[in-house]
This record gives sequence, C-alpha cells and structure tokens, in this order.
Amino acid sequence: MSTSRGDMKILFSAPESDWADYRDLLPSALAHAGITAEVVREAAPDTVDYIVYAPNDDLRDFTPFTRTRAVLSLWAGVERIVGNATLTQPLTRMVDAGLERGMVEYVTGHVLRHHLGMDAHVVNPERDWTPVPPPLAADRPVTVLGLGALGRACATTLAGLGFPVTGWSRTPKRIEGLRCLSGEDGLTAALTGAEIIVALLPLTPETEGILDAARFALPAPRAALINPGRGALIDDAALLEALDAGRIGHATLDVFRTEPLPREHPYWAHPRVTVTPHVASATRPATAARVIAENIRRAEAGEPLLFEVDRVRGY
Amino acid sequence: MSTSRGDMKILFSAPESDWADYRDLLPSALAHAGITAEVVREAAPDTVDYIVYAPNDDLRDFTPFTRTRAVLSLWAGVERIVGNATLTQPLTRMVDAGLERGMVEYVTGHVLRHHLGMDAHVVNPERDWTPVPPPLAADRPVTVLGLGALGRACATTLAGLGFPVTGWSRTPKRIEGLRCLSGEDGLTAALTGAEIIVALLPLTPETEGILDAARFALPAPRAALINPGRGALIDDAALLEALDAGRIGHATLDVFRTEPLPREHPYWAHPRVTVTPHVASATRPATAARVIAENIRRAEAGEPLLFEVDRVRGY
Ligand SMILES: NC(=O)c1ccc[n+]([C@@H]2O[C@H](COP(=O)([O-])OP(=O)(O)OC[C@H]3O[C@@H](n4cnc5c(N)ncnc54)[C@H](OP(=O)(O)O)[C@@H]3O)[C@@H](O)[C@H]2O)c1
Ligand SMILES: NC(=O)c1ccc[n+]([C@@H]2O[C@H](COP(=O)([O-])OP(=O)(O)OC[C@H]3O[C@@H](n4cnc5c(N)ncnc54)[C@H](OP(=O)(O)O)[C@@H]3O)[C@@H](O)[C@H]2O)c1
Repeated sequence: MSTSRGDMKILFSAPESDWADYRDLLPSALAHAGITAEVVREAAPDTVDYIVYAPNDDLRDFTPFTRTRAVLSLWAGVERIVGNATLTQPLTRMVDAGLERGMVEYVTGHVLRHHLGMDAHVVNPERDWTPVPPPLAADRPVTVLGLGALGRACATTLAGLGFPVTGWSRTPKRIEGLRCLSGEDGLTAALTGAEIIVALLPLTPETEGILDAARFALPAPRAALINPGRGALIDDAALLEALDAGRIGHATLDVFRTEPLPREHPYWAHPRVTVTPHVASATRPATAARVIAENIRRAEAGEPLLFEVDRVRGY
Repeated sequence: MSTSRGDMKILFSAPESDWADYRDLLPSALAHAGITAEVVREAAPDTVDYIVYAPNDDLRDFTPFTRTRAVLSLWAGVERIVGNATLTQPLTRMVDAGLERGMVEYVTGHVLRHHLGMDAHVVNPERDWTPVPPPLAADRPVTVLGLGALGRACATTLAGLGFPVTGWSRTPKRIEGLRCLSGEDGLTAALTGAEIIVALLPLTPETEGILDAARFALPAPRAALINPGRGALIDDAALLEALDAGRIGHATLDVFRTEPLPREHPYWAHPRVTVTPHVASATRPATAARVIAENIRRAEAGEPLLFEVDRVRGY
C-alpha cells in the first residue's frame, strides 16, 4: 500500500554523524510505512517535500522551501528552531521509546545515587566505615518539574520504587501515584521541602531561568538538583551561591548554556557539582526512524501529525 | 483476643543499640497481636519462653534455655548461629518489608551506577566531555545470584526497568520476566556473558567461596560485581586478580569476611573497588517488630512459623 507520490523527496538536514546512523534505517522505515521516497543530503529547496532536521544543523533559512510540507526534528528539545520566523511549516519534535527509556534510566540512577549517598563511598580516601543505612525511598520526597513524555515516565518509575513524587506542569493533570501540581503556586508547593529535584522542562521564554535564587530557597536543606532538561532553565550564579551556602547540597547537570561546558566554567571545579556531558538520553535511530516515517505517512494521508510543536507555547 | 499465657517472658538478646530501637516497638507490636508478655534484657534461662536474637550478640550457649520455644533472629543472614549445636529450638530469620525495600534500592542504584558509568563523571579531574550515551538497559544483561526474599525482589525490579535479568537459585523456579536457572550448570550459564552480577546468596558451606577464579572467567570482559550478600561468598584473592587482569571491571562490596573492613585491606586502596560499610539494607524496627510478634502468635497458636531456618540447608 503506497500513500505517497513516486517523486517524494526528503532532505536529511543534520550533521554527518547522524547521516551515518540514518542513511539505511530511514529508507527502510519509510518502505515499511508504505512510503516511496528519495532521502537526500542535498536538493534544490523548491523540490523538497519533507525535511528531517537536527537543531544543530546549519540550515537556518527555510524561506526557499516553498513545497515543503513539514519539518521533522530528530531532537526532543526544539528551542533552537521553534522561534525561527522563516519556518512556517508544521514542526514536529522527537518522542521516541528509546529516548524515553534512556532518560528514565539516567534519572532513576542519579536519584538513587543521591538518595543512597553513593559518592561518599565512591570517593572515600579516609577509609571511613560508618554503617548507617540511608532512609527508605518512602521517606525521600522527590519533585519532577515537567510531566511531558519524559518527566511523566521518570516520575511514575520513581513512584514505583517507593519515592513520594510530586510532579509539576503548565496545565493541571491527574496521574496515578503522583501528586500533580501546576501553575505558579503549584511550583512553590512542589519545591517546598523537596529533597531531590529533577528538571525536565523544555526551554521556553517562560521557563528560562526558572530555577533562580528564590526557588533555591524552597527545598529541604542540602537538597539535590538533577538537570537533564536544558541548561538555561537554571540561573547559574544563583545555583553556585545556593551550593556554597549549603541550601542546595549537590547538583548533577547534564545540559548547559554553552556545550561542551567550557573548561574554565566553575561547575567543573565545584566539589558538589557533577557534570555529565549531555548524555542523559539520546534519540535512538532505530526507533526514531519509525517515528519520522509514521509522521510522513500521516502527513500524506491528511491525518494529524504526532508531537507537533505549538509555536505559541514554544514546545 | 489473647492467645498467650499471662506470664510469658521474652528475652531480648541483642546489643544495646537494638534495644533502644525495640524497647517500645516490640511490646506494642506484641499487644497488637494479642500477646501478653514481658520483654526483658535479663532472665534466668529456664524462665524464658522466646528469645529475640541478633547474631552479633554474646549469647552462644542455648543449653540452659530449657523452656524456650523458639529463637527469632533480627537479621536476615543467620550463618553465625545456624550451626550452633546448643540451639535445638526452631530458629527463624528476618524477612521484613523494610529490609527488602532497602535492598532493592541499594541494588537498583548500584546496578544503574555501573550501567550508566557514573563514576567517570563523579570523578573527572580532566574535565573530559565525551557525549556518548550508554546503551539502554535492554542491552545490558544482569545476573542475580539468589532468588530468595531479597534476590527475587531485586531481580524483578531490574527486569521492570528493562534489564534482561537471569536469576540463579538452588531449586528450579519460574518467575515472570526472569530467566531462572539452578544447579551447577545453571550457574555457569547464568554467569556467562553477564555484564553486571549481583550476589544475594546466604552464606552456607555450599556457597562459601562460590565466586572464585573459575567463575570470574565467565562474565563479559570488565563486568561489574555487586556483593550485598556475604563477604565469604567471594574468594578475595581471586577477585583482586580478576580485577587486576580486567576480567572483572569493578566490584562494589558491602560485606566482608572481617567487618569493619580492616584499614590495610587491599580493597580499600583498589581503584576499581567500592567499599560500602554494610549498609545495603537494615532490618527496620517498626516492620520487624511486627514480624516477631506474628511469629510468637503463631507459635502460641500451634501454627507453622514464618521464615523458619532449615538447619540442613543452612539458611
Ligand atoms: N539531556 C538530554 O539528553 C535530553 C534528551 C531529551 C530531551 N531533553 C529535554 O527534556 C525536555 C522535556 O522533554 P519532553 O519530551 O518530556 O517534553 P514535553 O513532552 O513537551 O513535556 C514538557 C513538559 O513541561 C511542561 N511545561 C512546559 N512549559 C511549562 C511551564 N511554563 N510551566 C510549567 N510546566 C511547563 C509541560 O506542561 P504541559 O504538560 O502542561 O504542557 C510538559 O509537562 C525537552 O524539552 C528537552 O529540553 C534532554
Ligand atoms: N548487606 C546487607 O545489608 C544484607 C541485608 C540482609 C540480608 N543480606 C544477605 O542476603 C542474603 C539473602 O537474603 P534472603 O532473605 O534473600 O535469603 P533467602 O530468602 O533465604 O534466599 C536465599 C536464596 O539463595 C539461594 N541459595 C541458597 N543456597 C544456594 C546454593 N547452594 N546454590 C544456589 N542457590 C542457593 C536460595 O535458593 P532456593 O530459593 O532454591 O532455596 C534462595 O533463592 C542473606 O542470607 C544475607 O546474607 C545482606
């Protein structure tokens, strides 16, 4: 069953390393979805039907792509492209099972690391033997900021391990096993007394710098912050101050305003900051190629796209 | 409803620090179970009906306790007492919800730590930024040795996170979501190719030194070993050799032949060994007191005891 014209052209506009991953997987996922198309690395803009796009690609001016019906991002976070005025076509972001699983593993692992106080054993030059078991998860309140594809999966997994989990989102939600809060007051309540905070918000004008000095005053003393969302969610100066004052006990940061994190950045040297090099999760080509193919099938069939970005909300 | 004689005497034979935890909890759990009894720290042996016992207590000669109907251990591991020829009464070990939860948290946390390669980020003096995400859990085979109260709970939690989990026990088992093996051949198959191994066996004559040079040759190169079971499950010299040869990549050890681990022990200095000070889990007094009370109720009612130790098997 073919739902597409024979001469469909898909521009793969992403760095060379992505091309190595997708050059075979994408055509086969398309064939599997019943789409006949040519996937190319270069094309005259007015001949391109779809653009598969990585936000770190050089392509910035979408004006000449007059025939293009949708731009399909390989990334979950689209803050680099969502405000681009030349992009007037529908834009989708990536939600993929592999990306979700990776994020759940990263977040669960680092929450348990802080919960168990592992670092004191991993680095223990004094050979200190103090046999005091940590409290149980049931006595460790965790707050997850963002209850989207990733935040929700992480929050429910942590709740399944026994942590009392509060989740926070823009719109009100009911999710079994979680305390769900929303809005400005909800944020204050969600952070107050939290012992471990996980930031999984997208970067938008509203969330930029949302974790600032006032917010760092709310959690339990020496709370741990884990940020696999976006670097600019955090007011870096305020975080460093909160760390030095002991209000925040530790920060594990995966994302930064500048990446790679510059060698001279104070986060690298700080004894209570762990830098992970934007590895919390990655789009997995095998599953992601299927998401792209399914969205092209939908566009051709006139069905609503999956994971379409709302330009006004910014995510 | 009272099922007991009014003059019942329970000897609490455990270190002073345990007494502080249980002196109020145990009488109230007993009252809740309908038992009228006196819980004492000292008594003429021939007046004692039950002994609540910690295996690190001084009491070693049970001969004079002629009236004692059962010895109820506060610990899960009973290797220090199971072979005591003077102990002829029924012996129960501790299985408690708090102990199980703590162990699941410890094991899940350390499995994820090794899976994610966290240590390279926790200690990163070179400020190395290499953004390569780890494989997904689905591609990381984990083996759990021991499928008792604790091993089974850990194995099923890890399987729920997506790890392919193999479990090994003495008797054959079928547990949903796990590959279950047993016996000598089963052990070889369970270890072969494993990338993370968790030892949750009791210490018995059969399991002493079970992890030896021949077994360390079976897992995937640079596999991680996590031992929250008992120190003597491991041939220490063979483990150090396997670590130095890179056959085993890392060992996280919670239990040792001598505890506290002596300051001069090579494990402390080894760059690929993490020592945790016997904190994987602890009996939680609130839940454990209820288990003790329930077993005394059962004994008085002539019902079978929970978690009775098999002296021949040794656990
Ligand atoms: N470090 C990494 O490797 C990595 C990998 C993938 C993704 N990420 C990051 O993770 C982020 C989240 O991904 P996702 O797929 O879960 O996104 P998503 O499905 O779009 O979910 C976003 C969540 O944030 C909430 N939110 C957005 N703006 C908000 C505001 N102003 N106030 C309160 N809540 C707000 C949304 O609320 P509603 O539910 O009410 O809309 C939603 O729950 C991505 O944007 C990306 O930056 C990082
Ligand atoms: N580090 C800590 O903080 C901590 C805390 C609590 C407990 N522990 C340790 O954890 C151990 C396990 O506790 P548990 O409550 O899970 O014990 P359990 O319920 O008695 O289970 C023991 C498991 O080991 C298996 N096993 C015993 N001997 C074996 C053999 N020769 N070959 C193969 N399998 C064998 C048993 O097989 P079957 O099922 O076939 O009988 C069973 O599955 C305890 O004995 C204790 O040493 C450590």
